[in-house]
Amino acid sequence: MLHFTLDQILELENIYRRNLINSLYGCKPAVLIGTSNSEGQNNLAIFSQVFHIGATPPLLGVLFRPDSVERHTLSNIREMQHFTINHVGVDMAAQAHQTSARYAKDISEFDATGIEAEQMEGIEAPFVKKSPLKMHCKAVEEIKLQVNSTILLIATIQDVFVDELMLGADGFINPQAGGLSAVAGLDAYFSMQAIGRYAYAKPDKPAKEIHP
Amino acid sequence: MLHFTLDQILELENIYRRNLINSLYGCKPAVLIGTSNSEGQNNLAIFSQVFHIGATPPLLGVLFRPDSVERHTLSNIREMQHFTINHVGVDMAAQAHQTSARYAKDISEFDATGIEAEQMEGIEAPFVKKSPLKMHCKAVEEIKLQVNSTILLIATIQDVFVDELMLGADGFINPQAGGLSAVAGLDAYFSMQAIGRYAYAKPDKPAKEIHP
Repeated sequence: MLHFTLDQILELENIYRRNLINSLYGCKPAVLIGTSNSEGQNNLAIFSQVFHIGATPPLLGVLFRPDSVERHTLSNIREMQHFTINHVGVDMAAQAHQTSARYAKDISEFDATGIEAEQMEGIEAPFVKKSPLKMHCKAVEEIKLQVNSTILLIATIQDVFVDELMLGADGFINPQAGGLSAVAGLDAYFSMQAIGRYAYAKPDKPAKEIHP
Repeated sequence: MLHFTLDQILELENIYRRNLINSLYGCKPAVLIGTSNSEGQNNLAIFSQVFHIGATPPLLGVLFRPDSVERHTLSNIREMQHFTINHVGVDMAAQAHQTSARYAKDISEFDATGIEAEQMEGIEAPFVKKSPLKMHCKAVEEIKLQVNSTILLIATIQDVFVDELMLGADGFINPQAGGLSAVAGLDAYFSMQAIGRYAYAKPDKPAKEIHP
């Protein structure tokens, strides 16, 4: 095993440190966040920092770095409150990654990358048409983390759209069945292969595999 | 596509809703958090809510639900500050899942599940010996999310230990090379298969694949 201490990490060359520290988390969900501003200009940006906060009511969190290209996304959410989260299929990974380029504010990443947008009735934010799992969200709160000015945005999930091939009888959504991708570090995309599902664990019983 | 509105989600049967909402995020890192208390009692628990907050200095976040089995982990971190994060290899998924059983406080999940602990000199928290990617962390701040009392713990990364087979020349840690697993929903484990890595995106150039 190689060992990096905190002091050694802080002395690493910048890009090396950024890669190393960002890839300490293995695979994270690769999603595209769709927003629009009050002039109807659409924006689309890739994120991997989206996570579950609660099921009842359904709440999620998104982290925004203050100095990142995600700034159009955050300013649009502040303006409009509503946004969409669209999972990236393995066949869209290259296009999705391209949304991280610093396009000018008046250019829609949908147009620039060729990802097809979809407008749904009554929802003022664009979806990714091809995405097999997508959500309509509404911002409820912003928390600025004092440690480094990262912003945690908390949102309620207003609508879920899921390809029925992914949805199991118990409500589980199978990411492999939808061909979802995951991202490691800043730029590496992966597909997933099932190992197994395990029953709710009990102290007096060994782990038990359930239907996949 | 199937469509669930917020009202429909809130009316779903509890277990179905829990599965559905928890699996909206595709694959998340599967990690084991190792802690000990002041009496030297070790604890180990599986988490998938661990994420990057910053690279300089290296900071991460962990989410704790107030009513979950993770309570021993959080009380130990509050007592000792130091803890470890250990990625779960595909060959350890069943054992790792078993740590989520509600063992009594005086039982170590290392003993109960047969996962071998490792103590490192100068670090007062147990590691998972077999894990190919692990970190020693120190808690710096706790934020209680008012929306549902979830606790966001922020920690600095003090040490990183990584199998050298996983580490690339540019600092990228390849999760597939280490056989890391990811978890979808509450109980489904996956391995990963590379799609590709893409260069830093620029507006005037198409996505370009780089070495894997």
